[in-house]
Parts: sequence; C-alpha cells; structure tokens
Amino acid sequence: MLYHVKMDVKIPLDMPKETADAIKATEKAYSQELQRQGKWRHLWRISGQYANISIFDVDNHEELHTILQGLPLYPYMSLEITPLNRHPSSIKEDDS
Amino acid sequence: MLYHVKMDVKIPLDMPKETADAIKATEKAYSQELQRQGKWRHLWRISGQYANISIFDVDNHEELHTILQGLPLYPYMSLEITPLNRHPSSIKEDDS
Amino acid sequence: MLYHVKMDVKIPLDMPKETADAIKATEKAYSQELQRQGKWRHLWRISGQYANISIFDVDNHEELHTILQGLPLYPYMSLEITPLNRHPSSIKEDDS
Amino acid sequence: MLYHVKMDVKIPLDMPKETADAIKATEKAYSQELQRQGKWRHLWRISGQYANISIFDVDNHEELHTILQGLPLYPYMSLEITPLNRHPSSIKEDDS
Amino acid sequence: MLYHVKMDVKIPLDMPKETADAIKATEKAYSQELQRQGKWRHLWRISGQYANISIFDVDNHEELHTILQGLPLYPYMSLEITPLNRHPSSIKEDDS
Amino acid sequence: MLYHVKMDVKIPLDMPKETADAIKATEKAYSQELQRQGKWRHLWRISGQYANISIFDVDNHEELHTILQGLPLYPYMSLEITPLNRHPSSIKEDDS
Amino acid sequence: MLYHVKMDVKIPLDMPKETADAIKATEKAYSQELQRQGKWRHLWRISGQYANISIFDVDNHEELHTILQGLPLYPYMSLEITPLNRHPSSIKEDDS
Amino acid sequence: MLYHVKMDVKIPLDMPKETADAIKATEKAYSQELQRQGKWRHLWRISGQYANISIFDVDNHEELHTILQGLPLYPYMSLEITPLNRHPSSIKEDDS
Amino acid sequence: MLYHVKMDVKIPLDMPKETADAIKATEKAYSQELQRQGKWRHLWRISGQYANISIFDVDNHEELHTILQGLPLYPYMSLEITPLNRHPSSIKEDDS
Amino acid sequence: MLYHVKMDVKIPLDMPKETADAIKATEKAYSQELQRQGKWRHLWRISGQYANISIFDVDNHEELHTILQGLPLYPYMSLEITPLNRHPSSIKEDDS
Repeated sequence: MLYHVKMDVKIPLDMPKETADAIKATEKAYSQELQRQGKWRHLWRISGQYANISIFDVDNHEELHTILQGLPLYPYMSLEITPLNRHPSSIKEDDS
Repeated sequence: MLYHVKMDVKIPLDMPKETADAIKATEKAYSQELQRQGKWRHLWRISGQYANISIFDVDNHEELHTILQGLPLYPYMSLEITPLNRHPSSIKEDDS
Repeated sequence: MLYHVKMDVKIPLDMPKETADAIKATEKAYSQELQRQGKWRHLWRISGQYANISIFDVDNHEELHTILQGLPLYPYMSLEITPLNRHPSSIKEDDS
Repeated sequence: MLYHVKMDVKIPLDMPKETADAIKATEKAYSQELQRQGKWRHLWRISGQYANISIFDVDNHEELHTILQGLPLYPYMSLEITPLNRHPSSIKEDDS
Repeated sequence: MLYHVKMDVKIPLDMPKETADAIKATEKAYSQELQRQGKWRHLWRISGQYANISIFDVDNHEELHTILQGLPLYPYMSLEITPLNRHPSSIKEDDS
Repeated sequence: MLYHVKMDVKIPLDMPKETADAIKATEKAYSQELQRQGKWRHLWRISGQYANISIFDVDNHEELHTILQGLPLYPYMSLEITPLNRHPSSIKEDDS
Repeated sequence: MLYHVKMDVKIPLDMPKETADAIKATEKAYSQELQRQGKWRHLWRISGQYANISIFDVDNHEELHTILQGLPLYPYMSLEITPLNRHPSSIKEDDS
Repeated sequence: MLYHVKMDVKIPLDMPKETADAIKATEKAYSQELQRQGKWRHLWRISGQYANISIFDVDNHEELHTILQGLPLYPYMSLEITPLNRHPSSIKEDDS
Repeated sequence: MLYHVKMDVKIPLDMPKETADAIKATEKAYSQELQRQGKWRHLWRISGQYANISIFDVDNHEELHTILQGLPLYPYMSLEITPLNRHPSSIKEDDS
Repeated sequence: MLYHVKMDVKIPLDMPKETADAIKATEKAYSQELQRQGKWRHLWRISGQYANISIFDVDNHEELHTILQGLPLYPYMSLEITPLNRHPSSIKEDDS
C-alpha cells in the first residue's frame, strides 16, 4: 500500500555540526536500506528546502509508523501523510 | 526535470453527467498519451478525494505549463506545483 | 486497518427538499449496511454541525476509497482522512 | 456524554530521556486506569505523528477538564475538543 | 452545562426581502422562547457583523444540537461551539 | 459597554512552580476584585484549555486596556477582543 | 471613541451597472454626511483593492453598529473592526 | 504618500526590565520626533494588545523603510505595510 | 517607485468564450501599451496557474491604483501588492 | 529558466553583532558574484521587512538548489519558490 509522506526537517541552530553530521549519516544509511528493501519507493528533495517528498510502499499503517518513528531525524521533523490509491487512468505498473 | 503536481478537481454540481463523462474520457486519453511519452511519470489518486498527485518529467517550466493548460479538466482544477531535485540519499535510478 | 474520516456536508440551498430527503434516506441505508458489515465501525455526529466523525475498518486504501466514493452525499461533502494505528497505551480490544 | 479529543504532544528537545520516559510511563498508567473505568473509551495513535485521537465518555465538561488537566503530558500538549452526539444513522450501541 | 456558540449568518443576496423578514421574525420568537426557558442564557450581537455570541445552558450535547438545528436561520449559519466550565476564579453565581 | 475577551495563557515551561503559583494567586485576587466592581462581568474556563472567555463591562476602550494590561499573567497571554452590542432579540436585562 | 474598520467590498458580477452605480452614489453621500458630522474621521482607499480603511469616532459600539449597518454597500461587504486607544507616545491632538 | 503600518511588538520574556525600559524610552523619543516632522502622521494603540496602527506620510518606499528600520524596537516587531490612496469619497483635507 | 503585484484571474465558468476572448485581447493591448511606456516593467506567468507576477514602476500609489483598476480583467482578479525597495546588495541598474 | 524566490530572514536575537555582520558581508559578496554571472537576475528588498524578492535564471532545479543552499544566511531563512514562464503578453526581451 502506498503513502505519500512530506518531511520537513528543522535541526536546532545550536546543535553541534558533528552531532548533526552523525545523525544525517545514520539517516542516509537507514533510508538507503529501506529503499533497497523496496519499502521506501521514491525519495525526492523539494527544491530549495530542507524537505523531501517520499512514497512508501508498506503493508499497513503500523509498518509505516514504525519506519517513520525510526528515522534518526524524526525528532526534528514535521510529517504530513497522505494515503494514495492506484489512479484509474494510470498505465504504469509501478503506480500501485 | 521533475515537478510534483497536486490537482484538485471541482466539477460544477450542475454540469450534465454526459458532459462531465465526455470531459473525463478525454482527460484519461490525454493523460495516458503523456504517460506513454514518459512526460507524466507517476499518477496517484489521493484516497477519498477527487484529487491526484502526479510527477512530471519535462524539459522546462514552459513544457509543464503547456501540458497542464491542455488538461481537459484544467478549468475545474486548482493546482499546486513543487519543483523536485534528486535527493542525495536516493539510490533509485528513476528518482531523477 | 483503521481510518478516521471527518465528513462535512453542504447541500446546495436550492436543492428541492424531496431530492435532499431521498439522498439522505439512501445515505442512511448505505451507511447502516456498512455498519452491519463491520466496515463502518463508528459514526458520530459533531454537535451543532451537519458533519460527522467516522471510524472505518477496511482492508486497504482502495476499499476505503470505493466506500467513500459510493456515498450518496459524496458530491456534497468535503472529507478529511487520517490513518490510525493501535495506540501502545490502549487496553481496548476493539481499538485496532 | 462523548467528546472527541485530539492531543498533539511536543516534548522539549532538551528534556533528559529519563525524565521523558518517567512522564510517559505515568501517562500510560493514568490513561489505562481511565480506560478501565470506561471514561477514556477509545484511544488511537495518528500514523506517523506523536499525537492521538481519543473518545471520552464522561458526565460533563467539568469531568472532562479534570481528566485532561491531570494528564502527566498536559503541559506539553495542545488539545482540540469536539462534542459528539449520537448520529441518527448509527446502529452501534456503543456510539452514544 | 454551558456552551459558547458563535453564529455567523449569511443570507443569500437573492432571497426575497419578505422571505428573509419572515425567517428572522420566526428566529426571534424561537430565540426568545428559549431565553425565557433559561436554555439560551446570553445573546449578544458582534458589533458591525451579522453574527452573535451566545451562551447556552442545556442538559447535554443532544439538547444543544436539537436547539441549534431548530433555528430557522440554521441553513444560513456557520456555527462554532466551545464547551465552557466554571472558572476557579469566578465569584459569579450565574457563571456555571 | 461590553467586550468579549478570549485569553490564552502560555506560561514558559521553565518558570519555577512557586513563581507561577504566586502570579496565579495575584491574578485570581485581581480578577475577583474586578468582578466585585462589576467590571469583569463573566468569566468562564474553556474546557480542556488553559484559556478563558470573559465579558467585560467598562466605560470605554481605555478602561478595558488598562484592566487587561494590569493582569499579572498579561505577559504570558495572547488576547482576542470583540466589541459586543445588545442583540435586538435579547430579553435579558443583563445582556447590555 | 475610536474604531479602526477595514471594509472589503464584493459586488456580485451580475449586478446591473446602473444598480451598482446608484448604490455607490448613495454610499458616497452617506459617507460624506458622516464625515461632515465628524463620526467618520478618516477614510482611505487600499491601493489596488476595492477596499478601504476607516477611522470612526463614535460614542459607543451601538452607534458604530448602527452606522455600519446603514451603509448602502453593507450587504456586499465584509468588515473587520478593531478598537483603538490613544497611544502613550502620540503627540497628535486628533489621535484620540 | 501614505502607508498604513501595523506593528506587533514581542519583547523576549527574559530581557531585563531596565534594558526594555531604555529601548522603549528611545522608541518614544524617536517616534515623537517623526511625528513633529509630520512623517508619522497618526499613531494609535490597538486595545488590549502590545501593538499599534500607524499612518506614515513619506516621500517614497525608501524613506518608509529607513524610518521603520531605525525603530529601536524593530528587532522585536513584525510589521504589515499597506499602501493607501486618497479615497474618492473622502472630504478630509488631511486624508491624502 | 517599484511595486510587486501578483494577479490571480478567475473568469466565471459560464462566461461565453467570445466575451472572455475579447476581454483578454483588450487586456493584452492594455498591458503592452503600459510595458512600452515603461510603467509595467516586468510580467511573468506563474507556471501552471492563470496568474502572473508583475513589477510596476510608477510615480506613486495613485498611479498604480489607476493602472490596476483600468485592467479589463480587474473585476475577475484578486491582487496582492508589495512595495519594493532597492536592495543594498543589488548591482543591477534596473533594480530600482 | 526563471524562478521567483522570496527569502525571509530571521537571525536569532542572541547572535553576536560581529557574527551577524560577518555572515551578512559574505552573503553580499556571494549574491553580487551570482548577479555578475547573470544567475541572480533581480534582487529587491521588501519595504519594511528583512526579506527580499529575487528572480533567478538558472539551468534547472538542481542549480537553483545548489545556489540557495550555499547562501551564508540559508540556515536563518525561510524560502518560497515559484517557477515562472514567459508571459504571452510580455514584450520585454529579458522577461524570459
């Protein structure tokens, strides 16, 4: 099942650069592992923002929640979640 | 170049059903032709809404505008457009 | 899987009363059939509003969309959908 | 009488983990006691958010206020309260 | 139990004056009867607006809903409802 | 002249409890003195919020401003002020 | 006593030009009479908008309401009203 | 040329009282000098708020910007600026 | 003096195509004449919207208002106006 | 390709003046270099705000993102990005 997730990241201005870099590196590894598993199907950066738009393909709400809560940047994010359906006009196999 | 487009459709309540059906059929054909050309890369319905989220892959703003303005449902839509970049953590070939 | 749905109904002021009454009667039957099937798990009116809050228990986004789109009052509604998870502190069996 | 309550929790980023964990444990016990008493009738997590949706069944506004103000996480929450009525189309005994 | 209700009235510009006057007269009688019964405890006009702020004293949500839905101007109103408690600093007998 | 005032209080999370308690005690005395003088005509708590709705009966804007600015909790409040008129349908003597 | 009033005018697109012109002429006369009486102390157009900002100097809310309700364009306006006080730093005699 | 400016002031709660008082005193002198020069034509306090509404009469945007940026409280303010025209119905000489 | 203007156009769905085309043709001629005069300095379409962003270079608010009010599409537009200053970091001669 | 970018700057009140001045000086040099290269085509200050409106002319979203992310003030900014097309009514050579 597909979910559209918008993640806005706001790292506190006073977090030491090394701490921030370490969190971001863990985040990257975490994200890439989920991409390899096919759970995190798409990941795009919003131009000019510290924000991304992602498409998740998971079994249910529970799995989505567990994945999002596990994001190393989760405490610094605000999230918007939109359930997606296959569109009756889509001809793409991977749009559902 | 990628653009994230959210389309909300509001067909006037007093439009005759046949007119609406004809417009929707043209819209579907138009959309599928653009999908076949690779310009309209993804198309998802937002659950429970007469709205979709789409990813377009076009040469520039001009091409995007021409495509959107050509939508048979364009007069009944409100549109939100967000430019997308490849995300540095993406490992997907088709995310850019 | 659970979804929280808020439905706001706005029937056009110039719709004949009999038409409105007929739609509402069909809506009621449709809703009660889904309640009997266990799909529409809860249904409450928001005090003082022509609006309700509902909890749906369906297999996936697709089933939710089909049910909502089938509502006789759907053309006159605006809908807000929120996916729900079991809460780790809940002790109720029927909260998931 | 039923009330729909949405609770958004925002724990300060600099609260020590032990303090936060202690508050959350007390919150859980407090919530489960009220569930056992039948006052806190439903409790769901909003997917991907540190937020919940709850249905309270209490005698009056006063009792609701006392319960909410007693929440160990109350100082870190923002709350939205919506009074609910039995819906004329509901066939569920426990929807009022 | 007390409820704070804000009512904004928007009568369609093309409603004949006599129809509007008739509805308003019925509304006035309806409101005054409820004031006499003590259900509609306060009623103020918002300066410069076709809107009022009211305090209702009713047994429960159900009674409030029935009263509001019975307002002759109800189809032309938008309503905001806020449950009120006695304030611990109030010394007025009639503030609860 | 009547004014409807909504006060939302947000005391900083790091204010020592004794300081907060002292301010609240002064606030209570200040409010009750004004109630006794008839200036602060009604005072209700909004259920589940650290907020109140008040009706002031003062000579003019100036007096209202002086009273509000004198509130011990004023630095921690946000305020919304709405001038009120007697409603033509009110039958209550004390609604103006 | 001073009130800041922002008036936004939205005349229906299908009102005949002569009707609109007649209403506007009456509005102008009404406004100028009130200016001569000193009740409508200032009147400015917002650049590029069919909207104005006005300062009224009236005895009380009641008088303000009566004046505003009497505006020939009142049915086509939305109004925002803000009570104003003399500012402690003002040196202008006519700022109160 | 006239500009309508709304200034909302939010002084940090932890600024020492003497610092705040010193800034406010400088602000007052600065404002009064500009009033004497005729640049700051009107200045009113919004009732119950730490905010004002001002009318500036300056040569151009540049002069307005220089004046506002020079306000001692500028770092603690949020500002809304609205260009004003003479209103065709105004009969006041000093409304342009 | 420079003004940033955002124009959103909403032509009623039931306006006959010829009427709309005639208005748009007049609008184009009007706009191009002002561009030739140097008053309408820049004009861009917002991608995917029936909306534009324009920079006007006029003598004062009055001239801006007269130009905007004269737009053939003015009755169907909503407008946002922002005064602009030369930026201290600009090196462009034509940015002021 | 053209992008309209609105930048709002909020430097923390407790940043030492020398630090802020150093960042601003670097920002100015960075901006002027990009103006010389023709990438940052226009730059205006919004009157009365610590904010600017800019027009960028870059090859694609990627180049825009890289430029914006490189702004020395980027961590203190919020950004709004709007893709722009040549307007069919524009007669200016440099509007595309």
